[in-house]
Order: sequence, then structure tokens, then C-alpha cells
Amino acid sequence: MEEQIISKAIIETYIKELISYLDVDVAIVGAGPSGLICAYYLASAGKKVAIFERHLKIGGGMPGGGMMFNRIVVQEEAREIMKEFGVRLKKYSEKLYTADAIETISAFTFKTIKAGAKIFNLISVEDVIIREKMITGVVLNWTAVDIAHLHVDPLGVKAKAVVDATGHDSEVCRIVERKLGEDFKVIGEKSMWAEKGESALTENTKEVYPGLFVCGMAANAVAGSHRMGAIFGGMLLSGKKAASLILGKL
Amino acid sequence: MEEQIISKAIIETYIKELISYLDVDVAIVGAGPSGLICAYYLASAGKKVAIFERHLKIGGGMPGGGMMFNRIVVQEEAREIMKEFGVRLKKYSEKLYTADAIETISAFTFKTIKAGAKIFNLISVEDVIIREKMITGVVLNWTAVDIAHLHVDPLGVKAKAVVDATGHDSEVCRIVERKLGEDFKVIGEKSMWAEKGESALTENTKEVYPGLFVCGMAANAVAGSHRMGAIFGGMLLSGKKAASLILGKL
Amino acid sequence: MEEQIISKAIIETYIKELISYLDVDVAIVGAGPSGLICAYYLASAGKKVAIFERHLKIGGGMPGGGMMFNRIVVQEEAREIMKEFGVRLKKYSEKLYTADAIETISAFTFKTIKAGAKIFNLISVEDVIIREKMITGVVLNWTAVDIAHLHVDPLGVKAKAVVDATGHDSEVCRIVERKLGEDFKVIGEKSMWAEKGESALTENTKEVYPGLFVCGMAANAVAGSHRMGAIFGGMLLSGKKAASLILGKL
Amino acid sequence: MEEQIISKAIIETYIKELISYLDVDVAIVGAGPSGLICAYYLASAGKKVAIFERHLKIGGGMPGGGMMFNRIVVQEEAREIMKEFGVRLKKYSEKLYTADAIETISAFTFKTIKAGAKIFNLISVEDVIIREKMITGVVLNWTAVDIAHLHVDPLGVKAKAVVDATGHDSEVCRIVERKLGEDFKVIGEKSMWAEKGESALTENTKEVYPGLFVCGMAANAVAGSHRMGAIFGGMLLSGKKAASLILGKL
Amino acid sequence: MEEQIISKAIIETYIKELISYLDVDVAIVGAGPSGLICAYYLASAGKKVAIFERHLKIGGGMPGGGMMFNRIVVQEEAREIMKEFGVRLKKYSEKLYTADAIETISAFTFKTIKAGAKIFNLISVEDVIIREKMITGVVLNWTAVDIAHLHVDPLGVKAKAVVDATGHDSEVCRIVERKLGEDFKVIGEKSMWAEKGESALTENTKEVYPGLFVCGMAANAVAGSHRMGAIFGGMLLSGKKAASLILGKL
Amino acid sequence: MEEQIISKAIIETYIKELISYLDVDVAIVGAGPSGLICAYYLASAGKKVAIFERHLKIGGGMPGGGMMFNRIVVQEEAREIMKEFGVRLKKYSEKLYTADAIETISAFTFKTIKAGAKIFNLISVEDVIIREKMITGVVLNWTAVDIAHLHVDPLGVKAKAVVDATGHDSEVCRIVERKLGEDFKVIGEKSMWAEKGESALTENTKEVYPGLFVCGMAANAVAGSHRMGAIFGGMLLSGKKAASLILGKL
Amino acid sequence: MEEQIISKAIIETYIKELISYLDVDVAIVGAGPSGLICAYYLASAGKKVAIFERHLKIGGGMPGGGMMFNRIVVQEEAREIMKEFGVRLKKYSEKLYTADAIETISAFTFKTIKAGAKIFNLISVEDVIIREKMITGVVLNWTAVDIAHLHVDPLGVKAKAVVDATGHDSEVCRIVERKLGEDFKVIGEKSMWAEKGESALTENTKEVYPGLFVCGMAANAVAGSHRMGAIFGGMLLSGKKAASLILGKL
Amino acid sequence: MEEQIISKAIIETYIKELISYLDVDVAIVGAGPSGLICAYYLASAGKKVAIFERHLKIGGGMPGGGMMFNRIVVQEEAREIMKEFGVRLKKYSEKLYTADAIETISAFTFKTIKAGAKIFNLISVEDVIIREKMITGVVLNWTAVDIAHLHVDPLGVKAKAVVDATGHDSEVCRIVERKLGEDFKVIGEKSMWAEKGESALTENTKEVYPGLFVCGMAANAVAGSHRMGAIFGGMLLSGKKAASLILGKL
Repeated sequence: MEEQIISKAIIETYIKELISYLDVDVAIVGAGPSGLICAYYLASAGKKVAIFERHLKIGGGMPGGGMMFNRIVVQEEAREIMKEFGVRLKKYSEKLYTADAIETISAFTFKTIKAGAKIFNLISVEDVIIREKMITGVVLNWTAVDIAHLHVDPLGVKAKAVVDATGHDSEVCRIVERKLGEDFKVIGEKSMWAEKGESALTENTKEVYPGLFVCGMAANAVAGSHRMGAIFGGMLLSGKKAASLILGKL
Repeated sequence: MEEQIISKAIIETYIKELISYLDVDVAIVGAGPSGLICAYYLASAGKKVAIFERHLKIGGGMPGGGMMFNRIVVQEEAREIMKEFGVRLKKYSEKLYTADAIETISAFTFKTIKAGAKIFNLISVEDVIIREKMITGVVLNWTAVDIAHLHVDPLGVKAKAVVDATGHDSEVCRIVERKLGEDFKVIGEKSMWAEKGESALTENTKEVYPGLFVCGMAANAVAGSHRMGAIFGGMLLSGKKAASLILGKL
Repeated sequence: MEEQIISKAIIETYIKELISYLDVDVAIVGAGPSGLICAYYLASAGKKVAIFERHLKIGGGMPGGGMMFNRIVVQEEAREIMKEFGVRLKKYSEKLYTADAIETISAFTFKTIKAGAKIFNLISVEDVIIREKMITGVVLNWTAVDIAHLHVDPLGVKAKAVVDATGHDSEVCRIVERKLGEDFKVIGEKSMWAEKGESALTENTKEVYPGLFVCGMAANAVAGSHRMGAIFGGMLLSGKKAASLILGKL
Repeated sequence: MEEQIISKAIIETYIKELISYLDVDVAIVGAGPSGLICAYYLASAGKKVAIFERHLKIGGGMPGGGMMFNRIVVQEEAREIMKEFGVRLKKYSEKLYTADAIETISAFTFKTIKAGAKIFNLISVEDVIIREKMITGVVLNWTAVDIAHLHVDPLGVKAKAVVDATGHDSEVCRIVERKLGEDFKVIGEKSMWAEKGESALTENTKEVYPGLFVCGMAANAVAGSHRMGAIFGGMLLSGKKAASLILGKL
Repeated sequence: MEEQIISKAIIETYIKELISYLDVDVAIVGAGPSGLICAYYLASAGKKVAIFERHLKIGGGMPGGGMMFNRIVVQEEAREIMKEFGVRLKKYSEKLYTADAIETISAFTFKTIKAGAKIFNLISVEDVIIREKMITGVVLNWTAVDIAHLHVDPLGVKAKAVVDATGHDSEVCRIVERKLGEDFKVIGEKSMWAEKGESALTENTKEVYPGLFVCGMAANAVAGSHRMGAIFGGMLLSGKKAASLILGKL
Repeated sequence: MEEQIISKAIIETYIKELISYLDVDVAIVGAGPSGLICAYYLASAGKKVAIFERHLKIGGGMPGGGMMFNRIVVQEEAREIMKEFGVRLKKYSEKLYTADAIETISAFTFKTIKAGAKIFNLISVEDVIIREKMITGVVLNWTAVDIAHLHVDPLGVKAKAVVDATGHDSEVCRIVERKLGEDFKVIGEKSMWAEKGESALTENTKEVYPGLFVCGMAANAVAGSHRMGAIFGGMLLSGKKAASLILGKL
Repeated sequence: MEEQIISKAIIETYIKELISYLDVDVAIVGAGPSGLICAYYLASAGKKVAIFERHLKIGGGMPGGGMMFNRIVVQEEAREIMKEFGVRLKKYSEKLYTADAIETISAFTFKTIKAGAKIFNLISVEDVIIREKMITGVVLNWTAVDIAHLHVDPLGVKAKAVVDATGHDSEVCRIVERKLGEDFKVIGEKSMWAEKGESALTENTKEVYPGLFVCGMAANAVAGSHRMGAIFGGMLLSGKKAASLILGKL
Repeated sequence: MEEQIISKAIIETYIKELISYLDVDVAIVGAGPSGLICAYYLASAGKKVAIFERHLKIGGGMPGGGMMFNRIVVQEEAREIMKEFGVRLKKYSEKLYTADAIETISAFTFKTIKAGAKIFNLISVEDVIIREKMITGVVLNWTAVDIAHLHVDPLGVKAKAVVDATGHDSEVCRIVERKLGEDFKVIGEKSMWAEKGESALTENTKEVYPGLFVCGMAANAVAGSHRMGAIFGGMLLSGKKAASLILGKL
């Protein structure tokens, strides 16, 4: 058991995957709940899916629950998805269920990877690749390079579809707005109104620019809809809808 | 779907669990691989187990793989544990297998929670509770309080056994050394020697002070054994052994 | 006297109050002098009042006096309020009195709580809840989450009226301006003109958006009036007026 | 109402007090619960007492309750002191009561100032004054000078007795240990053991060096006793005992 | 030689001056070369002059010379002023002289104070006082309060004339622009053109808003003139001209 | 071998060069690949060339390769330049070659200096010198002065031509835009499109303002062309073209 | 008036001095009051003296007075020195005088430079030069290099005598202690005792290691004497004594 | 020219090298002048050599010259090495030559890589690999991981010899001292004495622990010899000697 053999095993198997994923069907940016759900359905349908996650941690805001109380709330209509992932629900009221936030996110992560999606964590998307007026990929760098203020260039990844699942900040859409500008605008999320935010989410989940789809909170942020509050049903349905829209296109 | 009802649902269900876990069989400090494995076997045996994790993220150093290449290496002898958690292994050489780091840690997390253990993330252990020369609990605070340099007092949790699964730093043992001192000493991890480090790990997994057990890298650090390198077999076996030692005592 | 019992006593009694205050008559943002005075009169009139204060410290800018010289100045017309709170005044000139800044703020705090208001400190308001064009609550998070740059979602609280008592920054109004925009504008405080600033304050204390009231320096900031200087009479009267406006509405 | 007159009123009245307090009977370092209680009884007995508090905020760790849940717990034996300050108690169990942390600390502050003690906040003690082997005063600086890393010299204040009420850090005792050394040693607080910590506190409250008294958590820290947990009875009694020891000496 | 007597001597004599200077003829903001020269001529003419300097250090950018090489360059026409302050010049070329930067600034400082001006260092101007459309004073705070991010209110000082001698940033003019806006605009300094910058300086030295004068680099910055380069003749003449303009008005 | 003699040798020889380079033919800002290539051809043609580089490190983003993998890619058409510098190429595909990033940048640096150009590292350009509408030099400061937030003035250097080779940020052009404004605009780089970015580069390499040339990524950034990706052929040709344009003018 | 000529004038005259001062009679480290006084008397006696000051600012702690109140106190016995520098004293009591802190330090600076000493500010001493057991010089670097965490080597300066006038920290002595160790020990300043500190100062002012002298607060710090408080008489006398000791040796 | 092909080219060629260098003859830590020289002679002799450099920048302290004046000084005896690398020398005195610091370091880098050594920059050595009492490799991590405070495990590299060429800090030796302790001690560099430091350097260049060699300033630091000053001759000879010692062993 020599140390350099262990090193070799890790580097070789990782890089083989990385190189294989330089050309994918779908590049999903952000491994929060909606990005994972979207990846799960795409991978289950046989697509080659890479998720690029800026942090070491998977799960976006979900593992923190609400105000660090690590429980989440879902509605009746998301129950089926939760069941599909094997997450236990506790009935709270007529239409509301609570679940353990960490159980939920680890279930989503585990099953999404098992379905065939690959998660690259510690990697940030700092730009998109464009051909005429079509997004055709993402531009990656190690997140650590950015935090450490190192002057290091990024690398490009080709994708048939890109999904912005980065939450409130809708980071990919912000890049498109800043870099391409004239015909694309991020409006920004409005104040909290759980009911309206939830209902708008399905409608806002769409292709917002040729080749670029949004889901989860990023979808509401781009469209200027209301904030949803600490409830996750709509987000899961949004991830699922994004997957189905992409499957319809590819 | 009123916002304050969602808030209420989250707070009530979380606090009910938190209060229930103020008096536990086993308090495990650190939700890295060895802590999770230890919790899994204890919870599976019917013990009331709380894991207190300092970070928002679950998994310790595992999700980062080696040098951010998110694959891990395990040996033949840990294959069975990996299989029990449903993690896919790729054969690399005679005795070495690689696995996806995020698949592995999400599997460990999901199954450990399903087995009945409760993970409280974002919570740091800043002291232990003692009765004569016996550790009888841990002293908790929000990690955010510490990062934000706020002057806020902690709270105490009672436990029949405490497990230090905090890795290299062996944080709980360091507290015991600093606060109680005279008859307890952390030697500190030696340089890397994968083979020796692995073989010493089982032996070092033990009760190091009445009521306090160590497992994983913390065990080697306390005993002054060698660093193991980026290989995880011993760590999993160590978590399992710690569970069995505790079951023998409680 | 077991530690976990003490923990349980603290958590249970706090959370019982927190849950009870998820649905209030009035949510006051900021526990500076005007917010406290406003809360005092509302609570004295039997309203259910929660004050959410971002800092650990109560009192806003008052405990620092002027340039760290911890005395304050009040005018003749605020003398009665000071007397109602039992604060000792020292006559300085015909119309000016000085008081100990810490005596004043501790008196305001103590009596306001005794009147029935509840202060939640260490909690920030990061958004409002809205229904059509009506503010119907606030969105809370632990301040420590923000300082520690943790990715944790907030929770919502319902309120019949919200008071922005956050001082110069008029934080709640800024949120409304940024998030709802079109029909609401924060002008910003003008330079110092003690006399004009004082006289404008009463007039500026009002409902600035359906469901949202301003008092104290925030009122002048929203209206674009002059800065008042280190004198507190107008601020106290403003807090009292805000209370009376709200009582007239609820 | 000219601005410079307001400035003059604040500066003159503050500085008159500051100069008057350059020569005091007792200088108390730290405005947490034990320091305030100690000051209250000394001032009530007619002594000239100055409290020097490093922060803008008064109250030490009390306003944060336990883990930011702002309630506190006190035992039967401290009930009388709580009553003397007018703080409302809620019975929790046979011997335990809870109280609102902010109500408690504002009551302590208000009544202590009314009793005649003067609190100077935003001021740090960075050294002591000594004559042979007798502490005869403290050396002050603005806390802001320290935070801003400015090179500014401090000033000295004379005191017949100095009280270290700085909590866990026992800051004044640490200065004495570091600067005078040979015959004085701070042992440091041991791990949590609520019962033992509480019972040791009375005994540890004493004159630890000629002219220097300790009370509250600083007393236990100097003596190497156990940490008390989030319970405040002993601390209040300790503050009261320190006052009575000093009254017996002056 | 008791310590508290020394403290008393310092506080009393400083505060007596501070209170006396709460109502001045001229408040100069910034103790760089132009501010000092301006103060020197005003004080020499019998005016009551206070200089408020943000830093502990006196001299603005002068003590650093050019790129830390602590020499300065002056032209023929500033030779007389240098001589008046007793600074030694070394002839470099036909029209250029060099001088020791620290000798120059210490000479300016020493003679200005001797002429009767008072320098308050460590004090920032964070606002102005206004009456209708007339600047009538400045609003002060300790610089340390700002650096330490403390929430502490400022105090006001009355002045018949205010001088912005804050250099490139023209800080006071920026406050007026931001707070009063409509009829006042800071254009900002253009790129370096030593000759043009020097010649424009005299013209730009003037009353830019009722009660507010500019001199030195701030004058060029407000007017949108060119940057002067590391040459100081114009700056000294500008300070002198500002003094003479003010003397003509008061 | 006395220490002060070594000091003297270093200071004297450096300053002699620095003074000699206060008046140059060409001042190149940025010692990345395009700046070095440009300097190489200019110096080879006998021009007096100074490169001012903000960092201690030479080479811009090249030494970091792509995502810290320190290899670079060049196309067929840049092969000749690489050969001229003696850098070894490894054929990757029909038209692509890879090279060691550090070998490449050290070759460029070594040969450029040998050709007669002087590199001043650790020096930032914070402004330009202008005469009417013509850039006639740059304004320098130590980078360390900026990082350390010291208030120290810069010095000016005269140049017949200035080259902005600062990469994405096009720092010199940004200064010209901010300071001179009306007739000059930096559009900013668009998203990545390797092919288009490469082809636009030659065209964008030009004199963008009288006396100011751009090359490398700065050229594309000013013109609003696409980002090139981690390929260096165009950049080298751009540096060479800038040199030839300048030689045509001087 | 071309910019590069101004640059040349500054660089040339500065570097000429710097090179001339690479070999001096006395190198004084720290331009606080005692260092300046020492330099004044040495330069007046014809010695070649360089002062190396870490900060941009001259004067050590003096310009900040006591607690930012910028007055200082001196005793009867220092009156003559103050008079020699032309500083105005205000009688406070029988034996105590106050003076303006900035007037005092600018007088000291101005007259010391006029007497022939050269002050190099922004330069830190990071080591000493040694020959057998004799200090023969100092090792310099730009302070900005240190603050900016740049990896840049220092340069050496030869001196017949080195003076540590760095105050409390006695920085040069600390270097000697850490680097040469065995026969040299810095004891560290004791707590404040103005009278004792003052009287010990003269005695502690001496040659502490061959070639190394101490004066001012550094002298007391090395010897383990008491802190003096905000009184400056002894410091001035100490600077003068150090000068006379050195004159006796050279 | 598709972006993902460029990415693939970079990753593949880099990783192929990285994997090949997981098992080397010599691992040199630090790419400063002595490390580069050592690598040059080893690679020229046909050894497989990897240099691991913590920074993006190559060259250690050399590119900064002395106090940011980027010239270096070498003696007669190092002239031949300089000539071998093609660096131009300027005669300064009888025995001293100066050279351009950046020319020198780029020559060393370029020729060392051409000789066959591979430099991995941005990679830190955080531990060593050990077998009994023999260093047999180094443990690597990305430097960015460390700066960004990410919790990511390192990987191991096997080497027949390890060279500590990390300068003053002698980082590898410090690891060995801290981790293995009992029979190995780093004494630390003494103060500057150019002559003695130079002459000791050759002697200190040796195998300090089985498998671990030191050269350059690290050699003097480990042995407790004097600091050399800004002169580079000895360092180059030391690098060459280390190479020859290793060649004699392998």
C-alpha cells in the first residue's frame, strides 16, 4: 500500500471522469435541491449530466433548514418526489409535512449520483461559452483560485443545455446579462409571499435564453416573482419540470 | 400556506428533537466518515445517538477527495462496509478500489439518519461536562456565534458516552487535555506512512478517558501514530469498532 | 442541578415565546430609543409587540452618547417621557437637560419589557412579507448567520403592522424600495440642522407604505429631512406618535 | 438649539464625571452581572464606584442567554436578589426559575446606576497601577484605539480597591500574572460541572492580590474551579459577597 | 507624581481647548500642506482656527515624498513661503528646488501651531451643519469609532467658514454633493499634467458653496482640473490664497 | 564583503537604470505574454522599452496554465514565435500544440530582457500623463504602497508611446475612460468564443487613443470582442503587431 | 516643468542621501520623542545620524497624547529641554506642565533635522548585523513590503552604534534576544508606577549589548522596570543621556 | 478550435506529467535560486526531478532584489555558474558583480526546465512520507486549498531523495522536527554577517536526516549559521553541491 499508488488511483479515476465530462448533454450549475432533482430526472433518462458546484458542500441552503433549525417543510404536491427518494415525512398539518433537512439532501445527492449524474464540487462557473446567440457551454475554474485571489485562467466545457440552478443570485443569468446584455434582463426576486412565489415557480421554469434553462429560486429571481419562504415543494417540481423541458429539446 | 405557519412547523419539530437529544446515550462529535459509521452501528443497535457537527457541511474531509479530485480509495477489507451502504466500487488494483467521494458520503449520511441517528449541524462542542474523573456530556454552541465573535454562553448536553470523531485535531481530546490535564495527553499525529497508520488505527480506537472514546484520525492523533494518507478503509473499521466498544459498555 | 435540565429550561421557555410571537400585532425592527418608546406605548395599550434587534446590544446609538462621551441631551418637551421612565435629568440651560446615556437606555429597556413587549436580539430582518401592496410581516434570520457568511434560509413572522425604527439606514424601507420599487422611494437624510430636523420629525413619523410605519431617525431619512444632531427629544416623541398612529389603525 | 451648544453640554457633563472618577473608592472592571451587582451594593453603601466596560454593550454574556436563546436560569437562593431588582421570575421546576435575559440585565443596569455607580463603557483596562505589592489603580484606554490599532497612550485612574469582574478571561488577573508574576498565578477554569462550579464560587470570591478582588466567573477561573453552565445564581451571590468583602476593608 | 493627576492634567487642558473650539472662525478639514498653510495665515491674522485631521499623522501625502523617497520638489514661486517657515532648499535646476519632506512638514506644523491654530488629530468630519443654503459648521467623530465599526453618534462644531483641504478626495465637497445635491457637483480630478494642474490651482481656490472654501488638490478635484504631480508650489500658494479669501469675507 | 557595500551596489545600479528609464520610447504596462512579446520586438529594433509590472511575478496568467494545470495550448500560426524563443512544443492534434507554461514564460522573459528591455516589477501604473489629447507618459507607484493603504504620492515617467498589456481589466484604458471620458469608452470583454476571440484580436490591436496602444486580452476587452479561452496564439501575434504599429509611428 | 524631471529630482536627491547613510556613526531605530532627542544631541555634536522609522508618521505615541486627548505632561526637570526646542509650556501644578502634543513633536522633528540628522520613514529594521559579539549595523526593509506580505529581501546598513528607541516593544533588543540569545535577555516592562518608572529610566539608559544602546521606554522594558504613565520628562532626559553615552564612546 | 478540446489538451498533458512524477528520483521543495540550480545539475545528470513550488511565482526572494530594487549581487566565485546560464554580469568592484534579478531568475528557470526538470507551481508540501527513520517522499496539496481554508486531504509522492530548498523557513525540516522530533532539531538562522554566512553555507549543505537534504538559506537556518545578506554566490554553489551529494548517493 504505497502512498503514490493511492495518489495515482485518485488522480487517474477523477481525471478520466473530468475529461469525459468536458463534453456533456447538460451542465447544471449549482447542487442545491432543484439542481439535484433536475439532474436526477435527466440522468435517469440516460443523459450525460455534470453538476458544477462552487462549494465543497452539496445541498445549497437546504442543510441549514430555516434559521439553522435543520428541518424543512414540503407540501402535499411534492410528497411523491420525496417518496421516490425515500425521505421520511412527518405530517404537520392538513397540507404540510416536515422532513429532516440533512436526510433529504443526502437522499437527493445519493440517488442522483446513482442515477448516473456526476457532481464536480469546488468548481465555479465564471463565464459561459457562446456561439452567435446560443449558450453552448460553461467556463470553469477552481473555487479555491477565486477565494485565494490567484491569477489563474479557467477552462471551457461544452454542453447542449446549461441549467442555472444557483438560487437567489441566478449567477449564470447574471453573467449572461452582464456580458451579452442587450436582449436579456434579470429582474430580481421580490419580497416574500410564499403562496404566490410557489405558484409562479412552475411558470418561470423555462429556457430563458437559447441553450440556458432556469429552475428553483433562480427561476423566480430572473422573472421578478416573489420569494417563496422556507418551503421546498415548488422547488422540487421546478427541478423536475426543467428536466422535462430539456428532454423535450435534446 | 401562511409564512408564519411554515416557520412554526420548522421551529417546533426541530426544537422537539433538540430537547429530546439533551440527554442521549452517545454524543458523537464530528460528522466525518468515522463518526457517521460509528453512529450508524450504534443507532442500528437501538441507541439514542446525536452527532454534533461544527460545519453546515456533512462529511469531514471526504467530499474533497485528494487535492480536490473527489474520488476516494478503499482497501479490500472495507469493501463489505461500502457494500452495506450501497456505494459502488471500481476495482483499481489487486487490493484497491476507488469510489465517488460524494456518493460515498451521501450514502453514509442518508443511511445513518435512516438508522435513527440525529445530526445537528452548525453546532460546535466547546467544552465537556465532567463528574469527578468521568466525562458525562458535551457543551454546545452555535458555530456561527464563534465565527461572528459574539459573546454568547453555551448549553450542556448529557451523554453516557462521548465520541471524539473530529479528525486530525482530536478537538474533544484537546479540550480534555487543556482543561483537566494531569493524567491525559494528546501526542499528535506523526508523518505519513499509510501502511503503519492503517494498522495502528484499530488498536488506537478505544476509550481514552472514562466516558470518552476516539475513532478515525483522532484516534491516531491522540496516540501519536502515523498519518494514513488518502485511504479510508481503516477509518471505516475504526468507526465500527468504536461503536462495538460502546455497545459493550452501555 | 444537571446541566441538560438548565439547557432544557432555557430552550423551552425561549422557543415557547418565539413561537407565540410568530404572529403579532406589531413587529418593531430596531431596539433603539424610538423603537423602545414605540413598543412601550403599544404594549401598555395591550398590543402584542415583538422587537427584532440585529445586535446583541440594546439601545442603538444611545449608549455611545456623542463621540463616546456617554451623556445625552433632551429638550423641555421630552421631559415628561423621561420622567415616566424614571430617568434623572440634569438641567444644563434654559431648555436643555442632560442625562446618563446608559441609565436612560436601561430604563427604556426595562420598562418596555415590563410593559409586555418582547425583545428578540441577535436577529436581523432581511426581507418583508407582502400581500398585494400591503406589508404583512417580516422575514428573520440570526444575525450571526449573516456575519459568518453561512448559507442558511430565513423564516417569516406575521404582523398587522411593521415599524422601521432602524435609524439613519431605514433598513426596512430600503428593502421595500429595492424589492417593490415603483411606488416607494427613500430620499435619504440631509446634512445636520438640529432645529429643522427636530421639527420635521413629528411630521415624518407616519405610515409610509400600507402596513409599514417609520419612527425616529428612519422617518427623517425616508422623507429627506435634516439630520438632528445628538439630541433625543424628537426621537422619543416620534416613537410615541408612531405608537398612537398604529393604535388608531389596529 | 444650536448644535455646538448640544456638543458642549455632552462633553462638559461627561468630562466633569470622568475627572471626578479619576480617583475612586472602587474600580470595577467589566459590566456583566457580577460586576453590576457588586457595584450596586457598594454604591448603595455610599462608596464612589466606577465600572469600566470594554464594550459599548452592558451585560457581559447575559443578553445572549444560552446559545442565543435569550432566557436565563436562576436558583432558589438567588431569588431574593432578583426580586430586589424587580425582575420577574417564571418557576420552571422545584428549585429553578427562568427570567428574560434582557429584562434582567436592564434591571441590574438601571438600578445600579440609580444607586450611584457610574458606568464608563467603550473603555478598556490595559494595565494596573501598582505601589510596592499593592494594586492602587487601573490604566485605561478607549477600546476603539485598540480595535483600530492606533498607537495612543493610556491614562491612569486611582482606586482603593479594584474588582476583576471580567468573566472567563479574568483579564485583570492575567495582567497581574504577566506583569508581576512571581507570586501570583491564574490557574484557569476547568470543564463544566454546574453544581461544583456554583458551590466553589462563593469561596473563590476574595482578595486575590493586595487591592485586587475577583467575583463571578473570573473568580472560578483564577482558582481553577469548574465552569458553572448557564445558571446565574452563584454569580449574583458572588457579586454581592465581593461588595461586602470590600466594604469590610475600606 | 500620582498617575491620576497626570490624567487630570491632560484631560482638563485638552477638553478646555476642545470646548473653546466648538465655536470657531474657521474649521479646516485636513492637516496636509495646503490646510496647514491656510491655517497659518488665518491664525497669524488673529482668527480662531481649528484643523480637524482624520489621521494620527499630520502632513497628508507630504511625508511620503514621491514613491516613498521622502524628498519634495518646489518651484521658484513658492520659495518665499518655504523661507518664511525656515525650510532649507537645495537648488536642483533653473526653477526647481528640492527639500526634505519631513523637515518641510514639521516646519509647517510647528509654525502653524505657534501662530495660534489648534490641530485636533484622530477626528473625522462625517457631515456638515447647514442653515438654509449656507454651511455653518462641521460634524465630528473620532476616527477610531469609524475604523472600529462602532455605532456612536457624532457632535457638531460651529464655524463661520469651512475649508476643504482633504486632497484628491475633496471629502467635504463630496458630503455636500451627496447630501444637498441639486446645485453642487464635484467633477473629479483629471489625469496628470503638472503644468496645467499648477496653473489652474490658483483659479480653483475659491468659495465653492456658501461658507465652504477649497484649497490644495481638493480645489482641482472639485473643478475637474488636471493632477499636478509631485510638486508642491501651487499647493502652498493655494493655501495662502484660501486664507486671504476668507479674511476678506469674515 | 561588507553588507553596506552590497546594499550600495544594488541601490546604485538599480536607481541608475530607473532614472535612465524615466524618459523612454515605449512604456509597456503589464509583463504578461503579449506585453513581453511586444517589448521583445521593440527592444530588438533598438527602442528604449520599460515594462512596468504590478506584481512581483512576471507572466500574467500564463504560469497558472488552465485551472492550475500548468500547460498552455498554442495554434499552428504561433509556432514560429515559440520557436524563436526556443520553447519546446508537443503536438496535440492537427493544429494544436501544448507547451510547459513555465518554460514558455521564462523563455519570453529571459529573451526579452536580453533583447534590451527593462522590467520594473512591483510597480503599478495609477494614472497617465496627458498633454492636450495625447498620452505622453505614465504615473507610477510601488504596488506595496497600494496594498498597505499608505498615503504616498506617485511619480511620472515620460513615454513616446504607452502600451496597455494588462489583460482583461485593460487597466490603463479604464484610467483614460474614467479620467478623460468624453471621447473614449471601454466596452468590456464578451463571453468565451475561442475562435471569434482569436480572429478579432489582430484587428483590435491598435492605437486606441493618441499615444496609447492595446495588445493581448486588453485589446479585446476595450473593443467588446469575445473572450479567447486558454489558447495563446493570438496573444503572441497581437504583441508582435503592437510592436510593429509602434515602430511605424516612432 | 516636465513630470519626469520632477521624478528625477526626487529620486536622485533621496538616493544620494540613502547611499550616503549606508555607513553611519549612529543608527537610531524609532522616531519617537526619545529617539529624536538622542538624534538631536548626536547630530548637534557633528555625528552622522540616521533615524529609521517604521511608520509614515513621526513621533511614536506622542501625537496621540493620552487616550487621544492630544496634550502631554512634563515635569520641572524636562523644562529646559522643552525650552531648547521652543515648545510652549502651560503650568498645571507645582511641578507639572502641559504642552500641545503636536506642537512638541513637530518641534522635536524640525529641530532634529535642522541639526543634521536624517529621518528615513516607512523603513523597518528586521535584523541586526553582527561581527563576533558586536552589533555593527542594522538590516532594513520597506515597511510596505512587510504589510503587503511580499517576499522581498532586505539590505544592510553599517553603524558604529545602534540605538533601540522603539518604545515598549524594544524591537531591536527582541531581535538580539531571539537571534543571539544565550547572553542577552529582555525582561519586559512591569505595570504602571509613574514615579518609579521615571526614576529608573536614567539608570536603564545604557549600552545593553556591545554596540547597542537603549533609551526611552525601550530602556525600561529591557530592564524590567515599571511603566511610566503619560509623562514625558524622563523620556527626554533618557534620549539626551543615550546621546552623551554614545559620544563618550565614539 | 473548440473550447473543450483546448481544455482536454491542457488537462491530459498536465496530468500525464503529474502522474509520471508521483514517483521520482528527487523531489525538490521550493523553486528559489538554490532549488533551481540543484534541479538543473540533477536533471542534467539524467535524474527524474520534480520541483514543488508553493507560489504561482518562480524564483523565491530573487525577483524582488534588495528592498524592491531588482538587482542582485554575486561574487567572483559564482561567476562561472552565472555564465553557464547565460546571465550578463556588470562588474561593480574588485570581487563583486551585479545582475538583473529578473534576467537571472528567468535564465535559471528556463535552463532548468530545458535540462529536464519539471516545476509544479501552486503546490505546497504539508508533510513528508516516512519509512522507519527514512524520508521517502512528500505530501502535497494545492496551495489554494490552504489559503482558502478548505478542508481537503493531500496526496503523497514517492522520492529517493527530498531537498529542502525553502529558504529561511526551512519548511520541510520544520515538519520533520515537529512530527518526528526526538533526534532532529532546527536551530534557526542567526543575525546577518555576510562573510560568515557565505562561508558556512557550503558546510551546511548536506543530508540532515536520512533521505532529506538542505541547500540555500534553509541549510544555514537548520544549522544555526548567520544570515548572508543580499548576495547570491554561496546560494548557487550550495545548490550545486546538494546536487552532487545526491548524485553520489543515488
